[in-house]
Amino acid sequence: MHAQEIISRHPDVRGNTNAALIRCIEECFDCGQICTSCADACLGEDMVQQMKQCIRACLDCADVCLATGTTASRRTGSNEDVIRRMLEACAAACAACAQECEQHAAHHDHCRICGEACRRCQHACRDALQSMQA
Amino acid sequence: MHAQEIISRHPDVRGNTNAALIRCIEECFDCGQICTSCADACLGEDMVQQMKQCIRACLDCADVCLATGTTASRRTGSNEDVIRRMLEACAAACAACAQECEQHAAHHDHCRICGEACRRCQHACRDALQSMQA
Amino acid sequence: MHAQEIISRHPDVRGNTNAALIRCIEECFDCGQICTSCADACLGEDMVQQMKQCIRACLDCADVCLATGTTASRRTGSNEDVIRRMLEACAAACAACAQECEQHAAHHDHCRICGEACRRCQHACRDALQSMQA
Amino acid sequence: MHAQEIISRHPDVRGNTNAALIRCIEECFDCGQICTSCADACLGEDMVQQMKQCIRACLDCADVCLATGTTASRRTGSNEDVIRRMLEACAAACAACAQECEQHAAHHDHCRICGEACRRCQHACRDALQSMQA
Repeated sequence: MHAQEIISRHPDVRGNTNAALIRCIEECFDCGQICTSCADACLGEDMVQQMKQCIRACLDCADVCLATGTTASRRTGSNEDVIRRMLEACAAACAACAQECEQHAAHHDHCRICGEACRRCQHACRDALQSMQA
Repeated sequence: MHAQEIISRHPDVRGNTNAALIRCIEECFDCGQICTSCADACLGEDMVQQMKQCIRACLDCADVCLATGTTASRRTGSNEDVIRRMLEACAAACAACAQECEQHAAHHDHCRICGEACRRCQHACRDALQSMQA
Repeated sequence: MHAQEIISRHPDVRGNTNAALIRCIEECFDCGQICTSCADACLGEDMVQQMKQCIRACLDCADVCLATGTTASRRTGSNEDVIRRMLEACAAACAACAQECEQHAAHHDHCRICGEACRRCQHACRDALQSMQA
Repeated sequence: MHAQEIISRHPDVRGNTNAALIRCIEECFDCGQICTSCADACLGEDMVQQMKQCIRACLDCADVCLATGTTASRRTGSNEDVIRRMLEACAAACAACAQECEQHAAHHDHCRICGEACRRCQHACRDALQSMQA
Protein backbone atom coordinates (compact mmCIF):
# COMPACT_ATOMS: atom_id res chain seq x y z
CA MET A 1 0.00 0.00 0.00
CA HIS A 2 0.96 3.69 -0.24
CA ALA A 3 -0.29 5.36 2.98
CA GLN A 4 3.21 6.65 3.86
CA GLU A 5 3.75 8.05 0.37
CA ILE A 6 0.40 9.88 0.12
CA ILE A 7 0.15 11.11 3.73
CA SER A 8 3.71 12.48 3.68
CA ARG A 9 2.49 14.89 0.93
CA HIS A 10 -0.39 16.26 3.06
CA PRO A 11 -0.08 20.08 3.47
CA ASP A 12 -0.67 19.77 7.25
CA VAL A 13 1.92 16.99 7.55
CA ARG A 14 4.78 18.20 5.36
CA GLY A 15 6.72 14.95 5.62
CA ASN A 16 6.46 14.85 9.40
CA THR A 17 4.47 11.60 9.54
CA ASN A 18 3.59 9.32 12.45
CA ALA A 19 5.10 5.98 11.38
CA ALA A 20 3.06 3.97 13.92
CA LEU A 21 -0.24 5.49 12.80
CA ILE A 22 0.58 5.01 9.11
CA ARG A 23 1.49 1.35 9.69
CA CYS A 24 -1.81 0.99 11.57
CA ILE A 25 -3.77 2.49 8.65
CA GLU A 26 -2.25 -0.07 6.25
CA GLU A 27 -2.90 -2.94 8.68
CA CYS A 28 -6.53 -1.78 9.01
CA PHE A 29 -7.20 -1.96 5.25
CA ASP A 30 -5.31 -5.26 4.90
CA CYS A 31 -7.19 -6.74 7.88
CA GLY A 32 -10.51 -5.38 6.57
CA GLN A 33 -10.01 -7.24 3.28
CA ILE A 34 -8.79 -10.43 4.98
CA CYS A 35 -11.71 -10.48 7.47
CA THR A 36 -14.18 -9.98 4.60
CA SER A 37 -12.64 -12.97 2.79
CA CYS A 38 -12.47 -15.09 5.96
CA ALA A 39 -16.13 -14.45 6.87
CA ASP A 40 -17.07 -15.56 3.35
CA ALA A 41 -14.72 -18.58 3.43
CA CYS A 42 -16.17 -19.67 6.81
CA LEU A 43 -19.64 -19.36 5.29
CA GLY A 44 -18.51 -21.69 2.49
CA GLU A 45 -17.33 -24.42 4.89
CA ASP A 46 -19.40 -27.57 5.42
CA MET A 47 -19.29 -27.07 9.19
CA VAL A 48 -20.76 -23.56 8.88
CA GLN A 49 -22.96 -24.31 11.93
CA GLN A 50 -19.79 -24.17 14.09
CA MET A 51 -18.47 -21.08 12.31
CA LYS A 52 -21.32 -18.67 13.15
CA GLN A 53 -19.50 -16.72 15.87
CA CYS A 54 -16.37 -16.61 13.69
CA ILE A 55 -18.34 -15.21 10.73
CA ARG A 56 -19.96 -12.56 12.90
CA ALA A 57 -16.61 -11.58 14.49
CA CYS A 58 -14.98 -11.33 11.03
CA LEU A 59 -17.81 -9.15 9.65
CA ASP A 60 -17.67 -6.81 12.65
CA CYS A 61 -13.86 -6.64 12.44
CA ALA A 62 -13.97 -5.81 8.72
CA ASP A 63 -16.43 -2.94 9.31
CA VAL A 64 -14.46 -1.50 12.24
CA CYS A 65 -11.08 -1.86 10.49
CA LEU A 66 -12.20 -0.03 7.34
CA ALA A 67 -13.84 2.81 9.30
CA THR A 68 -10.71 3.11 11.48
CA GLY A 69 -8.36 3.14 8.47
CA THR A 70 -10.49 5.82 6.80
CA THR A 71 -10.85 8.17 9.77
CA ALA A 72 -7.18 7.70 10.72
CA SER A 73 -6.19 8.72 7.16
CA ARG A 74 -7.49 12.29 7.69
CA ARG A 75 -5.07 15.00 8.82
CA THR A 76 -6.92 18.24 8.02
CA GLY A 77 -8.06 19.86 11.24
CA SER A 78 -7.93 17.50 14.22
CA ASN A 79 -10.04 14.85 15.94
CA GLU A 80 -7.49 12.94 18.01
CA ASP A 81 -10.21 11.93 20.48
CA VAL A 82 -12.28 10.23 17.76
CA ILE A 83 -9.24 8.50 16.23
CA ARG A 84 -8.14 7.27 19.67
CA ARG A 85 -11.59 5.78 20.39
CA MET A 86 -11.69 4.16 16.95
CA LEU A 87 -8.20 2.68 17.51
CA GLU A 88 -9.46 1.25 20.82
CA ALA A 89 -12.60 -0.16 19.18
CA CYS A 90 -10.48 -1.60 16.35
CA ALA A 91 -8.01 -3.24 18.76
CA ALA A 92 -11.00 -4.81 20.55
CA ALA A 93 -12.62 -6.02 17.31
CA CYS A 94 -9.30 -7.48 16.12
CA ALA A 95 -8.71 -9.22 19.47
CA ALA A 96 -12.22 -10.75 19.42
CA CYS A 97 -11.83 -11.91 15.80
CA ALA A 98 -8.32 -13.29 16.40
CA GLN A 99 -9.55 -15.26 19.42
CA GLU A 100 -12.29 -16.86 17.28
CA CYS A 101 -10.13 -17.53 14.22
CA GLU A 102 -7.29 -19.02 16.28
CA GLN A 103 -9.68 -21.73 17.50
CA HIS A 104 -10.25 -22.80 13.87
CA ALA A 105 -6.68 -22.22 12.61
CA ALA A 106 -5.75 -25.91 12.69
CA HIS A 107 -8.72 -26.89 10.49
CA HIS A 108 -9.09 -23.83 8.27
CA ASP A 109 -6.05 -22.13 6.79
CA HIS A 110 -8.09 -18.98 6.09
CA CYS A 111 -8.75 -18.68 9.83
CA ARG A 112 -5.02 -19.05 10.58
CA ILE A 113 -4.20 -16.27 8.10
CA CYS A 114 -7.05 -14.08 9.42
CA GLY A 115 -6.06 -14.63 13.06
CA GLU A 116 -2.49 -13.57 12.27
CA ALA A 117 -3.71 -10.44 10.43
CA CYS A 118 -6.03 -9.52 13.32
CA ARG A 119 -3.15 -9.81 15.83
CA ARG A 120 -0.93 -7.63 13.60
CA CYS A 121 -3.71 -5.02 13.33
CA GLN A 122 -4.51 -5.21 17.06
CA HIS A 123 -0.86 -4.51 17.94
CA ALA A 124 -0.60 -1.78 15.28
CA CYS A 125 -3.66 -0.07 16.87
CA ARG A 126 -2.02 -0.31 20.32
CA ASP A 127 1.27 1.11 18.97
CA ALA A 128 -0.59 3.94 17.22
CA LEU A 129 -2.45 4.74 20.46
CA GLN A 130 0.85 4.97 22.35
CA SER A 131 2.38 7.17 19.63
CA MET A 132 -0.59 9.58 19.94
CA GLN A 133 -0.54 9.70 23.75
CA ALA A 134 3.16 10.59 23.55
CA MET B 1 -36.57 2.98 8.85
CA HIS B 2 -37.37 -0.63 9.78
CA ALA B 3 -34.70 -1.72 12.30
CA GLN B 4 -37.30 -2.64 14.94
CA GLU B 5 -39.35 -4.66 12.44
CA ILE B 6 -36.41 -6.67 11.05
CA ILE B 7 -34.44 -7.18 14.28
CA SER B 8 -37.56 -8.36 16.16
CA ARG B 9 -37.65 -11.32 13.69
CA HIS B 10 -34.05 -12.39 14.44
CA PRO B 11 -33.94 -16.03 15.68
CA ASP B 12 -31.67 -15.03 18.59
CA VAL B 13 -33.95 -12.11 19.54
CA ARG B 14 -37.43 -13.59 19.23
CA GLY B 15 -39.19 -10.26 19.69
CA ASN B 16 -37.21 -9.43 22.83
CA THR B 17 -35.54 -6.32 21.37
CA ASN B 18 -33.51 -3.57 23.06
CA ALA B 19 -35.51 -0.41 22.19
CA ALA B 20 -32.62 1.94 23.04
CA LEU B 21 -30.16 0.06 20.82
CA ILE B 22 -32.62 -0.13 17.93
CA ARG B 23 -33.34 3.60 18.14
CA CYS B 24 -29.56 4.15 18.16
CA ILE B 25 -29.12 2.03 15.02
CA GLU B 26 -31.70 4.14 13.16
CA GLU B 27 -30.13 7.40 14.39
CA CYS B 28 -26.71 6.14 13.22
CA PHE B 29 -27.88 5.56 9.63
CA ASP B 30 -29.87 8.82 9.58
CA CYS B 31 -26.89 10.75 10.97
CA GLY B 32 -24.50 9.01 8.55
CA GLN B 33 -26.59 10.21 5.59
CA ILE B 34 -27.00 13.73 7.01
CA CYS B 35 -23.27 14.12 7.79
CA THR B 36 -22.40 12.95 4.26
CA SER B 37 -24.74 15.61 2.84
CA CYS B 38 -23.53 18.31 5.24
CA ALA B 39 -19.85 17.69 4.43
CA ASP B 40 -20.70 18.04 0.76
CA ALA B 41 -22.89 21.14 1.32
CA CYS B 42 -20.08 22.78 3.36
CA LEU B 43 -17.71 22.01 0.49
CA GLY B 44 -20.12 23.81 -1.85
CA GLU B 45 -20.18 27.01 0.23
CA ASP B 46 -18.23 30.09 -0.87
CA MET B 47 -16.56 30.32 2.54
CA VAL B 48 -15.23 26.75 2.27
CA GLN B 49 -11.92 27.99 3.72
CA GLN B 50 -13.70 28.42 7.09
CA MET B 51 -15.54 25.10 6.77
CA LYS B 52 -12.51 22.79 6.64
CA GLN B 53 -12.76 21.48 10.19
CA CYS B 54 -16.54 21.11 9.81
CA ILE B 55 -16.12 19.06 6.60
CA ARG B 56 -13.55 16.81 8.25
CA ALA B 57 -15.73 16.33 11.36
CA CYS B 58 -18.77 15.49 9.18
CA LEU B 59 -16.80 12.94 7.10
CA ASP B 60 -15.42 11.24 10.20
CA CYS B 61 -18.86 11.23 11.83
CA ALA B 62 -20.46 9.68 8.72
CA ASP B 63 -17.88 6.87 8.64
CA VAL B 64 -18.18 6.11 12.37
CA CYS B 65 -22.01 6.29 12.36
CA LEU B 66 -22.40 3.84 9.46
CA ALA B 67 -19.89 1.36 10.95
CA THR B 68 -21.63 1.63 14.35
CA GLY B 69 -25.09 1.13 12.86
CA THR B 70 -23.87 -1.91 10.93
CA THR B 71 -22.04 -3.67 13.80
CA ALA B 72 -24.88 -2.84 16.23
CA SER B 73 -27.37 -4.48 13.82
CA ARG B 74 -25.80 -7.95 14.36
CA ARG B 75 -27.26 -10.27 16.97
CA THR B 76 -25.85 -13.69 16.06
CA GLY B 77 -23.24 -14.69 18.62
CA SER B 78 -22.10 -11.80 20.80
CA ASN B 79 -19.58 -8.97 20.79
CA GLU B 80 -20.96 -6.57 23.39
CA ASP B 81 -17.45 -5.24 24.06
CA VAL B 82 -16.97 -4.20 20.42
CA ILE B 83 -20.46 -2.66 20.19
CA ARG B 84 -19.88 -0.74 23.43
CA ARG B 85 -16.59 0.70 22.16
CA MET B 86 -18.17 1.61 18.82
CA LEU B 87 -21.05 3.34 20.64
CA GLU B 88 -18.47 5.33 22.65
CA ALA B 89 -16.53 6.24 19.49
CA CYS B 90 -19.80 7.20 17.76
CA ALA B 91 -20.93 9.40 20.66
CA ALA B 92 -17.52 11.14 20.52
CA ALA B 93 -17.66 11.62 16.73
CA CYS B 94 -21.22 12.98 16.97
CA ALA B 95 -20.27 15.37 19.79
CA ALA B 96 -17.26 16.68 17.81
CA CYS B 97 -19.35 17.14 14.66
CA ALA B 98 -22.24 18.78 16.53
CA GLN B 99 -19.83 21.24 18.18
CA GLU B 100 -18.49 22.26 14.75
CA CYS B 101 -21.85 22.42 12.99
CA GLU B 102 -23.47 24.41 15.79
CA GLN B 103 -20.92 27.19 15.21
CA HIS B 104 -22.16 27.50 11.61
CA ALA B 105 -25.87 26.88 12.28
CA ALA B 106 -26.83 30.55 12.06
CA HIS B 107 -25.27 30.93 8.60
CA HIS B 108 -25.83 27.48 7.10
CA ASP B 109 -29.13 25.68 7.58
CA HIS B 110 -27.51 22.34 6.64
CA CYS B 111 -25.17 22.75 9.62
CA ARG B 112 -28.14 23.46 11.92
CA ILE B 113 -29.89 20.28 10.70
CA CYS B 114 -26.65 18.25 10.96
CA GLY B 115 -25.85 19.55 14.44
CA GLU B 116 -29.32 18.53 15.63
CA ALA B 117 -28.95 15.05 14.07
CA CYS B 118 -25.51 14.59 15.67
CA ARG B 119 -26.90 15.49 19.11
CA ARG B 120 -29.80 13.03 18.65
CA CYS B 121 -27.34 10.30 17.64
CA GLN B 122 -24.90 11.17 20.45
CA HIS B 123 -27.68 10.83 23.04
CA ALA B 124 -29.03 7.66 21.40
CA CYS B 125 -25.51 6.13 21.68
CA ARG B 126 -25.35 7.10 25.37
CA ASP B 127 -28.83 5.61 26.01
CA ALA B 128 -27.85 2.42 24.19
CA LEU B 129 -24.66 2.17 26.26
CA GLN B 130 -26.68 2.47 29.48
CA SER B 131 -29.20 -0.13 28.27
CA MET B 132 -26.33 -2.58 27.64
CA GLN B 133 -24.59 -1.97 30.98
CA ALA B 134 -27.91 -2.68 32.70
CA MET C 1 -34.86 9.95 7.54
CA HIS C 2 -34.02 13.57 6.59
CA ALA C 3 -32.39 13.40 3.12
CA GLN C 4 -34.95 15.80 1.62
CA GLU C 5 -34.53 18.29 4.47
CA ILE C 6 -30.71 18.35 4.40
CA ILE C 7 -30.19 18.15 0.61
CA SER C 8 -32.72 20.95 -0.02
CA ARG C 9 -30.32 23.24 1.93
CA HIS C 10 -27.31 22.42 -0.27
CA PRO C 11 -25.87 25.61 -1.85
CA ASP C 12 -25.77 23.93 -5.29
CA VAL C 13 -29.36 22.70 -4.95
CA ARG C 14 -31.18 25.69 -3.47
CA GLY C 15 -34.41 23.80 -2.84
CA ASN C 16 -34.51 22.43 -6.39
CA THR C 17 -34.24 18.76 -5.36
CA ASN C 18 -34.72 15.57 -7.37
CA ALA C 19 -37.52 13.79 -5.44
CA ALA C 20 -36.82 10.41 -7.08
CA LEU C 21 -33.11 10.52 -6.22
CA ILE C 22 -33.78 11.61 -2.64
CA ARG C 23 -36.30 8.81 -2.13
CA CYS C 24 -33.70 6.42 -3.56
CA ILE C 25 -31.04 7.67 -1.10
CA GLU C 26 -33.38 6.96 1.83
CA GLU C 27 -34.30 3.52 0.46
CA CYS C 28 -30.57 2.73 0.07
CA PHE C 29 -29.79 3.43 3.73
CA ASP C 30 -32.95 1.65 4.92
CA CYS C 31 -32.18 -1.37 2.70
CA GLY C 32 -28.53 -1.35 3.79
CA GLN C 33 -29.57 -1.66 7.43
CA ILE C 34 -32.23 -4.29 6.69
CA CYS C 35 -29.87 -6.43 4.57
CA THR C 36 -27.23 -6.28 7.32
CA SER C 37 -29.83 -7.52 9.84
CA CYS C 38 -31.20 -10.17 7.47
CA ALA C 39 -27.72 -11.59 6.70
CA ASP C 40 -27.14 -11.87 10.43
CA ALA C 41 -30.60 -13.34 11.10
CA CYS C 42 -30.08 -15.93 8.34
CA LEU C 43 -26.74 -16.81 9.95
CA GLY C 44 -28.60 -17.39 13.23
CA GLU C 45 -31.08 -19.87 11.70
CA ASP C 46 -30.73 -23.61 12.30
CA MET C 47 -30.88 -24.26 8.56
CA VAL C 48 -27.93 -21.94 7.90
CA GLN C 49 -26.57 -24.49 5.40
CA GLN C 50 -29.48 -23.57 3.08
CA MET C 51 -29.09 -19.85 3.73
CA LYS C 52 -25.53 -19.42 2.40
CA GLN C 53 -26.46 -17.78 -0.89
CA CYS C 54 -29.02 -15.58 0.89
CA ILE C 55 -26.40 -14.40 3.43
CA ARG C 56 -23.93 -13.62 0.67
CA ALA C 57 -26.57 -11.75 -1.38
CA CYS C 58 -27.63 -9.73 1.70
CA LEU C 59 -24.02 -8.78 2.55
CA ASP C 60 -23.31 -7.68 -1.02
CA CYS C 61 -26.59 -5.73 -1.16
CA ALA C 62 -25.82 -3.95 2.13
CA ASP C 63 -22.37 -2.87 0.88
CA VAL C 64 -23.68 -1.64 -2.47
CA CYS C 65 -26.71 0.13 -0.97
CA LEU C 66 -24.64 2.11 1.55
CA ALA C 67 -22.03 3.13 -1.06
CA THR C 68 -24.83 4.15 -3.46
CA GLY C 69 -26.67 6.16 -0.80
CA THR C 70 -23.43 7.93 0.14
CA THR C 71 -22.25 8.83 -3.38
CA ALA C 72 -25.80 9.83 -4.42
CA SER C 73 -25.94 12.22 -1.42
CA ARG C 74 -23.20 14.43 -2.91
CA ARG C 75 -24.17 17.46 -5.01
CA THR C 76 -20.98 19.58 -5.10
CA GLY C 77 -19.47 19.41 -8.57
CA SER C 78 -20.88 16.58 -10.67
CA ASN C 79 -20.39 12.88 -11.32
CA GLU C 80 -23.67 11.83 -12.91
CA ASP C 81 -21.92 8.99 -14.72
CA VAL C 82 -20.65 7.45 -11.46
CA ILE C 83 -24.03 7.87 -9.72
CA ARG C 84 -25.82 6.29 -12.70
CA ARG C 85 -23.51 3.26 -12.66
CA MET C 86 -23.90 2.90 -8.89
CA LEU C 87 -27.69 3.09 -9.24
CA GLU C 88 -27.50 0.31 -11.85
CA ALA C 89 -25.23 -1.81 -9.61
CA CYS C 90 -27.56 -1.16 -6.66
CA ALA C 91 -30.67 -2.14 -8.64
CA ALA C 92 -28.89 -5.38 -9.63
CA ALA C 93 -27.75 -6.14 -6.06
CA CYS C 94 -31.28 -5.46 -4.73
CA ALA C 95 -32.86 -7.68 -7.42
CA ALA C 96 -30.44 -10.54 -6.64
CA CYS C 97 -31.05 -10.23 -2.89
CA ALA C 98 -34.83 -9.95 -3.31
CA GLN C 99 -34.87 -13.10 -5.48
CA GLU C 100 -33.03 -15.03 -2.74
CA CYS C 101 -35.01 -13.65 0.19
CA GLU C 102 -38.37 -14.22 -1.52
CA GLN C 103 -37.58 -17.96 -1.66
CA HIS C 104 -37.30 -18.02 2.15
CA ALA C 105 -40.08 -15.51 2.89
CA ALA C 106 -42.61 -18.20 3.87
CA HIS C 107 -40.25 -19.69 6.49
CA HIS C 108 -38.36 -16.62 7.68
CA ASP C 109 -40.17 -13.36 8.34
CA HIS C 110 -36.86 -11.44 8.19
CA CYS C 111 -36.42 -12.65 4.60
CA ARG C 112 -39.95 -11.48 3.74
CA ILE C 113 -39.21 -8.02 5.16
CA CYS C 114 -35.80 -7.89 3.46
CA GLY C 115 -37.19 -9.02 0.10
CA GLU C 116 -39.81 -6.25 0.25
CA ALA C 117 -37.16 -3.64 1.13
CA CYS C 118 -34.91 -4.82 -1.71
CA ARG C 119 -37.77 -4.50 -4.22
CA ARG C 120 -38.58 -0.99 -2.94
CA CYS C 121 -34.90 -0.01 -3.27
CA GLN C 122 -34.55 -1.67 -6.69
CA HIS C 123 -37.53 0.32 -8.01
CA ALA C 124 -36.31 3.53 -6.35
CA CYS C 125 -32.96 3.08 -8.14
CA ARG C 126 -34.76 2.57 -11.47
CA ASP C 127 -36.92 5.67 -10.87
CA ALA C 128 -33.84 7.71 -9.93
CA LEU C 129 -32.07 6.53 -13.11
CA GLN C 130 -35.03 7.66 -15.22
CA SER C 131 -35.18 11.03 -13.44
CA MET C 132 -31.48 11.59 -14.24
CA GLN C 133 -31.75 10.55 -17.88
CA ALA C 134 -34.60 13.01 -18.27
CA MET D 1 -1.79 -7.00 1.04
CA HIS D 2 -2.80 -10.67 1.32
CA ALA D 3 -5.86 -11.12 -0.94
CA GLN D 4 -4.19 -13.88 -2.97
CA GLU D 5 -3.11 -15.74 0.17
CA ILE D 6 -6.52 -15.65 1.90
CA ILE D 7 -8.75 -16.15 -1.17
CA SER D 8 -6.67 -19.15 -2.36
CA ARG D 9 -7.76 -20.90 0.88
CA HIS D 10 -11.49 -20.39 0.23
CA PRO D 11 -13.35 -23.74 0.16
CA ASP D 12 -15.13 -22.76 -3.09
CA VAL D 13 -11.85 -21.65 -4.71
CA ARG D 14 -9.39 -24.39 -3.68
CA GLY D 15 -6.37 -22.56 -5.04
CA ASN D 16 -7.99 -21.92 -8.41
CA THR D 17 -7.93 -18.10 -8.09
CA ASN D 18 -8.60 -15.40 -10.68
CA ALA D 19 -5.31 -13.43 -10.68
CA ALA D 20 -6.85 -10.38 -12.42
CA LEU D 21 -9.72 -10.15 -9.92
CA ILE D 22 -7.41 -10.55 -6.93
CA ARG D 23 -5.09 -7.83 -8.20
CA CYS D 24 -8.17 -5.64 -8.69
CA ILE D 25 -9.30 -6.26 -5.08
CA GLU D 26 -5.91 -5.12 -3.78
CA GLU D 27 -5.90 -2.06 -6.05
CA CYS D 28 -9.42 -1.17 -4.81
CA PHE D 29 -8.37 -1.11 -1.14
CA ASP D 30 -5.11 0.72 -1.94
CA CYS D 31 -6.95 3.28 -4.08
CA GLY D 32 -9.70 3.65 -1.44
CA GLN D 33 -7.08 4.60 1.16
CA ILE D 34 -5.20 6.92 -1.22
CA CYS D 35 -8.38 8.72 -2.37
CA THR D 36 -9.42 9.22 1.27
CA SER D 37 -6.02 10.80 1.99
CA CYS D 38 -6.04 12.88 -1.21
CA ALA D 39 -9.54 14.28 -0.54
CA ASP D 40 -8.33 15.32 2.91
CA ALA D 41 -5.02 16.72 1.60
CA CYS D 42 -6.90 18.75 -1.06
CA LEU D 43 -9.14 20.08 1.72
CA GLY D 44 -6.00 21.18 3.57
CA GLU D 45 -4.65 23.19 0.63
CA ASP D 46 -4.84 27.02 0.59
CA MET D 47 -6.49 26.93 -2.83
CA VAL D 48 -9.29 24.64 -1.59
CA GLN D 49 -11.77 26.74 -3.61
CA GLN D 50 -10.23 25.25 -6.79
CA MET D 51 -10.12 21.73 -5.32
CA LYS D 52 -13.86 21.21 -4.73
CA GLN D 53 -14.49 18.93 -7.70
CA CYS D 54 -11.28 17.01 -6.92
CA ILE D 55 -12.35 16.48 -3.28
CA ARG D 56 -15.79 15.29 -4.36
CA ALA D 57 -14.32 12.93 -7.00
CA CYS D 58 -11.85 11.49 -4.44
CA LEU D 59 -14.60 10.90 -1.84
CA ASP D 60 -16.84 9.17 -4.38
CA CYS D 61 -13.91 7.07 -5.65
CA ALA D 62 -12.97 6.01 -2.10
CA ASP D 63 -16.55 4.87 -1.37
CA VAL D 64 -16.90 2.97 -4.65
CA CYS D 65 -13.43 1.37 -4.41
CA LEU D 66 -13.99 0.02 -0.88
CA ALA D 67 -17.46 -1.36 -1.73
CA THR D 68 -16.05 -2.96 -4.90
CA GLY D 69 -13.10 -4.51 -3.07
CA THR D 70 -15.43 -5.91 -0.41
CA THR D 71 -18.07 -7.40 -2.73
CA ALA D 72 -15.36 -8.76 -5.08
CA SER D 73 -13.73 -10.53 -2.10
CA ARG D 74 -16.74 -12.87 -1.68
CA ARG D 75 -16.71 -16.28 -3.35
CA THR D 76 -19.45 -18.21 -1.53
CA GLY D 77 -22.42 -18.64 -3.86
CA SER D 78 -22.27 -16.36 -6.87
CA ASN D 79 -23.23 -12.84 -7.94
CA GLU D 80 -21.11 -12.26 -11.04
CA ASP D 81 -23.65 -9.74 -12.35
CA VAL D 82 -23.31 -7.54 -9.25
CA ILE D 83 -19.51 -7.78 -9.22
CA ARG D 84 -19.38 -6.91 -12.93
CA ARG D 85 -21.54 -3.81 -12.41
CA MET D 86 -19.47 -2.76 -9.40
CA LEU D 87 -16.27 -3.19 -11.43
CA GLU D 88 -17.79 -0.96 -14.13
CA ALA D 89 -18.85 1.66 -11.57
CA CYS D 90 -15.39 1.49 -9.97
CA ALA D 91 -13.60 1.92 -13.31
CA ALA D 92 -15.80 4.98 -13.98
CA ALA D 93 -15.17 6.47 -10.50
CA CYS D 94 -11.42 5.90 -10.88
CA ALA D 95 -11.38 7.46 -14.36
CA ALA D 96 -13.29 10.54 -13.11
CA CYS D 97 -11.00 10.93 -10.09
CA ALA D 98 -7.84 10.40 -12.16
CA GLN D 99 -8.96 13.05 -14.64
CA GLU D 100 -9.41 15.57 -11.82
CA CYS D 101 -6.23 14.69 -9.93
CA GLU D 102 -4.10 14.76 -13.08
CA GLN D 103 -5.04 18.42 -13.57
CA HIS D 104 -3.52 19.23 -10.16
CA ALA D 105 -0.58 16.79 -10.33
CA ALA D 106 1.97 19.49 -11.18
CA HIS D 107 1.04 21.58 -8.12
CA HIS D 108 0.06 18.90 -5.60
CA ASP D 109 2.13 15.74 -5.26
CA HIS D 110 -0.77 13.99 -3.46
CA CYS D 111 -2.88 14.50 -6.59
CA ARG D 112 -0.11 13.01 -8.75
CA ILE D 113 0.08 9.94 -6.51
CA CYS D 114 -3.73 9.65 -6.37
CA GLY D 115 -4.11 10.03 -10.14
CA GLU D 116 -1.59 7.23 -10.68
CA ALA D 117 -3.40 4.97 -8.18
CA CYS D 118 -6.78 5.67 -9.81
CA ARG D 119 -5.40 4.74 -13.24
CA ARG D 120 -3.92 1.49 -11.84
CA CYS D 121 -7.28 0.65 -10.23
CA GLN D 122 -9.25 1.64 -13.35
CA HIS D 123 -7.14 -0.70 -15.49
CA ALA D 124 -7.28 -3.47 -12.87
CA CYS D 125 -11.11 -3.22 -12.93
CA ARG D 126 -11.09 -3.45 -16.74
CA ASP D 127 -8.75 -6.49 -16.64
CA ALA D 128 -10.93 -8.14 -13.99
CA LEU D 129 -14.03 -7.53 -16.15
CA GLN D 130 -12.35 -9.18 -19.13
CA SER D 131 -11.22 -12.15 -17.00
CA MET D 132 -14.85 -12.68 -15.88
CA GLN D 133 -16.37 -12.38 -19.35
CA ALA D 134 -13.93 -15.04 -20.52
